[in-house]
Amino acid sequence: MTTATTKPLNQWDTSALKTQVADWKAQYTDLGGGNLKLDLSRGKPGVEQVSLSDGLDGILDGNFIAADGTDTRNYGGVRGIAEARDLGSQLMGIPAENIIAAGNSSLSVMHLVLRTARDLGLWSDERTWSRSDRPKLLAPVPGYDRHFVLSKHFGIELLPIPMTDQGPDLEAARAAVSDPSVKGIWCVPKYANPTGCTYADETVAALAQLPEVAAADDFVVLWDNAYAVHDLYDEGDTLASIFDAANSAGTADHVIQFASTSKITHAGAGVAFIGGSAKVLDALDKHLSVFSIGPDKVNQLRHVKFLQGRLQSHMADHAAIIRPKFALVEEIFTRELGELGVAQWTKPRGGYFVSLNVRPGLARKIIAMAKDVGLTLTPAGATFPYGNDPQDQNIRIAPTFGSMEEIHAAMEILTLCIKTASAEQILAGR
Amino acid sequence: MTTATTKPLNQWDTSALKTQVADWKAQYTDLGGGNLKLDLSRGKPGVEQVSLSDGLDGILDGNFIAADGTDTRNYGGVRGIAEARDLGSQLMGIPAENIIAAGNSSLSVMHLVLRTARDLGLWSDERTWSRSDRPKLLAPVPGYDRHFVLSKHFGIELLPIPMTDQGPDLEAARAAVSDPSVKGIWCVPKYANPTGCTYADETVAALAQLPEVAAADDFVVLWDNAYAVHDLYDEGDTLASIFDAANSAGTADHVIQFASTSKITHAGAGVAFIGGSAKVLDALDKHLSVFSIGPDKVNQLRHVKFLQGRLQSHMADHAAIIRPKFALVEEIFTRELGELGVAQWTKPRGGYFVSLNVRPGLARKIIAMAKDVGLTLTPAGATFPYGNDPQDQNIRIAPTFGSMEEIHAAMEILTLCIKTASAEQILAGR
Repeated sequence: MTTATTKPLNQWDTSALKTQVADWKAQYTDLGGGNLKLDLSRGKPGVEQVSLSDGLDGILDGNFIAADGTDTRNYGGVRGIAEARDLGSQLMGIPAENIIAAGNSSLSVMHLVLRTARDLGLWSDERTWSRSDRPKLLAPVPGYDRHFVLSKHFGIELLPIPMTDQGPDLEAARAAVSDPSVKGIWCVPKYANPTGCTYADETVAALAQLPEVAAADDFVVLWDNAYAVHDLYDEGDTLASIFDAANSAGTADHVIQFASTSKITHAGAGVAFIGGSAKVLDALDKHLSVFSIGPDKVNQLRHVKFLQGRLQSHMADHAAIIRPKFALVEEIFTRELGELGVAQWTKPRGGYFVSLNVRPGLARKIIAMAKDVGLTLTPAGATFPYGNDPQDQNIRIAPTFGSMEEIHAAMEILTLCIKTASAEQILAGR
Repeated sequence: MTTATTKPLNQWDTSALKTQVADWKAQYTDLGGGNLKLDLSRGKPGVEQVSLSDGLDGILDGNFIAADGTDTRNYGGVRGIAEARDLGSQLMGIPAENIIAAGNSSLSVMHLVLRTARDLGLWSDERTWSRSDRPKLLAPVPGYDRHFVLSKHFGIELLPIPMTDQGPDLEAARAAVSDPSVKGIWCVPKYANPTGCTYADETVAALAQLPEVAAADDFVVLWDNAYAVHDLYDEGDTLASIFDAANSAGTADHVIQFASTSKITHAGAGVAFIGGSAKVLDALDKHLSVFSIGPDKVNQLRHVKFLQGRLQSHMADHAAIIRPKFALVEEIFTRELGELGVAQWTKPRGGYFVSLNVRPGLARKIIAMAKDVGLTLTPAGATFPYGNDPQDQNIRIAPTFGSMEEIHAAMEILTLCIKTASAEQILAGR
């Protein structure tokens, strides 16, 4: 299935293009409609990856007592055990005293933060987002669909602003925050979901100043550092410290960070972390203690013992498994689409996704074409609030879960669908 | 420290009573104020108890795959793995299909249910408690303080109704639910916190009918079966099935049950369960999936493998540890207060608490006296909404956490404080 051409598709003459489309369609028909079961939609670690952490079970070897004498087998300790907070400190690059080590899901702690911000106040004073008729959050797009779903759940409107390869468009962000109903911004600052970009130092500095610039007195930077240690290469991207930047800017009470071990150990069976100022953590404590007598401290201790002194090598083991998968995606995109001028895709150095932009108006169609022959892709529009990709062009590719063979087969189908749909669109426009 | 009397204190003649008080006060002074560190306030399992479950860690022996092929090490499955729901079924006596197996805390799932009931609706329709200006829940008293805190957190008012030794006072409950702003009732139906009573069959049947009787169309029985398998004796109390009763009464959509393994395995590191009708679970799913990609399924699998086929013997091991502690409380109460007519206490056959009623107006004073010599008791009023024990007479005793020696010392102090304060009150009234 190679295309021996080096010319952008829209420069082909019509008859050559028609012949080519017929050939691609025949290939597509040969795929036999729906017998395959391929999937590039899931931002999940693969079996080989989760197997790296099987040593977690049994690692305690009968010793359930934390360093400070806490019996992890009993109730208590809403902020988690000290050594788990130290692990969070290592992941997030902020002091352990600024961290709550929580349960198995960073999504749940984001839920806690949004609910606290909206109804109870993050600073134990009168500043709640619910004072606004219609609180809003900025959503750099393309972005993470679960951030959008969470926000909508709380009746918070999402305002899309563009992502650049340096992070969120700062001019757009600054303009938007002059509206006092704009209460914060969602950020995935390292290996962003889905573009894979790591925010530039200037972007981090500017975002730390944003609460100062914002008209709202209850503006919050929501810093979801989900891929903090998820480098694909030995030399990972370096993310500037927003903790330091916020301290310099006097905005430490307005930056809340998130991380988890979900893509480090066993997905959904790990430890999530919240990072924030003393004042914010105090407010979250009050809310947390209403519905929790403490996180699973036994599992926290397991994670500490398992990752202690070997986090870096453990993450290198992950990288060794998934780097070839990302390389395969890149290889097939380049081989099949490289010269055709019908798509751009990112080449992330970490994280879990490749972001693909096709010709405007074709994402939905290509995803449907792929679906019809058994390849599931992330739904069109998922990377935009309300599912609304105004250009209908972004597709999120998740290459970690499948095997190399599955990714290979999936990418051949995806690129075939892109070529076919693009050529047909070009022909229709002539 | 024995009292060689067999007569109610209020029948003693004044000079004898004065002499006795002076003696008790001398004993109290001899305790030396605050050097002790005793505690009867904590409804926590003791070290010996949590040690019973140390086999959890390592039990998976490298096999993380659930019976249906689910890899517990990866994301997904909001309702928990099938065999964990089966475990919930065994605990709660309702079908697995009516159960969600969740995270580490039943309190968290109660929080989920209250928030869903208030804001989103438990039946995926327009019926939300927030339609009421001031939704209310019935609180049988004395009751469980964390139920009260949760309710207040959501702005739900608590209406106390009396507990009897058959369960909540049904006449009071029926009268209260004629108010359409009364949206539900909190119940701990077996070995109730703190009285230890198990609801009578007629009470269970009547409570299952309450949603039918209630003026509100969104009334819910909140059935916190926290001590479902926590018998102190081989022959445990039998609780009638509210699931069956609700099915008969046509109120299955209006009964929601809770349970957890927290006092079965490791407290705070186990599995919590929600039981409800298909319609209710669907509504909860929708809400859950906003902030969770699934519970810790690895830990669920651990619990299943650990408890499979041996839940009953495991709970008998717990009973063997804590039965002597309850017996010691009973023994010292009887020895020290038996004939004095100044207190009544419960003799539970399971659960975690003894409920003590002293002479009206003395609970706060006795708790303070105990505190001054180093014995911590549950704060006065804790078993009543808003901390308001109108008679100031209830004290919750939690004998599970301390050692036999500690309980012995604590009970000697407690009974001494009760005797002294009671005698002084009697004298003051003459």
